[in-house]
Amino acid sequence: MKNNKLLIVGTMAFDDIITPTQISGKILGGAGTYIGLAASYHPADIGIVSVIGDDFTSKYTSLLSDRGLDLSGVTKVKGQNSFYWKGKYHDNMNKRDTLDTQLNVLANFEPVVPAHYKDASVVMLGNLAPSVQQSALSQLKHNPNRVVLLDTMNYWMAAALDELLVAIKQVDVITINDEEAMQLSGETNIVLAAKAIHKLGPSHVIIKKGEHGAMLFYKDQSFYAPALPLQEVIDPTGAGDSFAGGLSGYLAAQDKLTTVTIKQGILNGTAAASICVGAMGTEGLISSAKEEFLAQLQELERLRTV
Amino acid sequence: MKNNKLLIVGTMAFDDIITPTQISGKILGGAGTYIGLAASYHPADIGIVSVIGDDFTSKYTSLLSDRGLDLSGVTKVKGQNSFYWKGKYHDNMNKRDTLDTQLNVLANFEPVVPAHYKDASVVMLGNLAPSVQQSALSQLKHNPNRVVLLDTMNYWMAAALDELLVAIKQVDVITINDEEAMQLSGETNIVLAAKAIHKLGPSHVIIKKGEHGAMLFYKDQSFYAPALPLQEVIDPTGAGDSFAGGLSGYLAAQDKLTTVTIKQGILNGTAAASICVGAMGTEGLISSAKEEFLAQLQELERLRTV
Repeated sequence: MKNNKLLIVGTMAFDDIITPTQISGKILGGAGTYIGLAASYHPADIGIVSVIGDDFTSKYTSLLSDRGLDLSGVTKVKGQNSFYWKGKYHDNMNKRDTLDTQLNVLANFEPVVPAHYKDASVVMLGNLAPSVQQSALSQLKHNPNRVVLLDTMNYWMAAALDELLVAIKQVDVITINDEEAMQLSGETNIVLAAKAIHKLGPSHVIIKKGEHGAMLFYKDQSFYAPALPLQEVIDPTGAGDSFAGGLSGYLAAQDKLTTVTIKQGILNGTAAASICVGAMGTEGLISSAKEEFLAQLQELERLRTV
Repeated sequence: MKNNKLLIVGTMAFDDIITPTQISGKILGGAGTYIGLAASYHPADIGIVSVIGDDFTSKYTSLLSDRGLDLSGVTKVKGQNSFYWKGKYHDNMNKRDTLDTQLNVLANFEPVVPAHYKDASVVMLGNLAPSVQQSALSQLKHNPNRVVLLDTMNYWMAAALDELLVAIKQVDVITINDEEAMQLSGETNIVLAAKAIHKLGPSHVIIKKGEHGAMLFYKDQSFYAPALPLQEVIDPTGAGDSFAGGLSGYLAAQDKLTTVTIKQGILNGTAAASICVGAMGTEGLISSAKEEFLAQLQELERLRTV
């Protein structure tokens, strides 16, 4: 994508995750973190815009900058802690309950896009308050070849629907899970939901179906990417963000954007999500080298090939 | 498959189906019927072994023989009615309640395989009492190149598990839905369930996931076939049987069996299931010509292609 710059807007945070078999304690998390780590498998110039607190020490920032992520757009607020989320998964891990949410530095987050990333060819707006997504978009320089992607969740449909609709109107690609697509569209069928969301703005609607893969809807066509079948899911946290990261990172590394590029991007997103759920929190993405990522992609090709 | 003969063992029956929007009244149904109709899209020599009653008049048998299905293995019992099932689907159509089951002629069904089909290269055992599936198998002549497929459901796992396990031990390919695969294996993960079922006998385990497609597990490999996204499902009845029919009909029409053939068969099964659920009962399969079946297959290729 021309300048190969990927701008990520998303939280850098801490999670406390309880799965049926493990308790994580306070560990590295946040949509921006997962997106950045997953995107870093691709040769792109990747910058994150986020906000962190005192507890997000150099131990964590080095981890990200060592992966080539540019953190010049990350504001550190002294005297406060980073965003914190604690959740517990049900036995089948398809559902989870939020046990605690502490906004901390996120409460007054005003994103500042560094000059270097204002002309980014690819912009990935991670799950965040739509007003923050919107604020980041408003700081960008014109780039006719830009692709803007947005991820969101049910919380914002209830808490800030009007602002969410304004943000969605400006994006090319939306990634959203199946239940949320139904909620946003008011439809009970995935095809009709995608059509309705298409009318809200995005030319490409990507519906994430968890273990059942992901579907792309564009014009009257569709594309299906299966998820890799796993013997064990350790922790589903961040799977959607990793998907968004693998997808947007891939797009940023390409010369031009076509429907084929987006489909390939979805497969790359799927491979990143697969690495993510194989370990607690960001552990899988952190410990897996590019070779392991490519192995997942190959596995996915085998799964799709007759 | 050498002689291109497909032997189907399955019910020919009547259903009474209540969906959220339609009430069918007493209409043509039965696993054998769906399997036969779906298989008939392929150039194979297809015979059905089943049992029917007085109510299964020539109006219905002609419908099937007009599609080239050989009904010489269908026994007509005078003075009794055919097997009858009445069910009602829940609003999302993923669940249904059985309102009435009348075994009628099925109560004393002893399958008789016609001499012509005793050397069939492909045998499709539709969802039936395992003892009936077993009895049909015991009548076959030796054919070293034969492929035996078996479909079953949760009912038999509760009512006749020991007999079911004996039948499963003799088959090459089992088609089973995801929940039933968990029930049969005692596993809660689809990959582990497939591995456990593999150990029961079948070299190829096909797990049907409804709107989420179907997966093949063989050795340590897997293949994923998505389902066609539909704006509207009219009636899910017979989708799994149509899948089995599209698959086994395709296999019977091939010169030899390979893993690639089975994967292609799964795509053919998916296309048939898609036609099935687009109308009430067997209506879709009856009214759709081969061109429409091929169109579904093409659509499926587009859905899978980057």
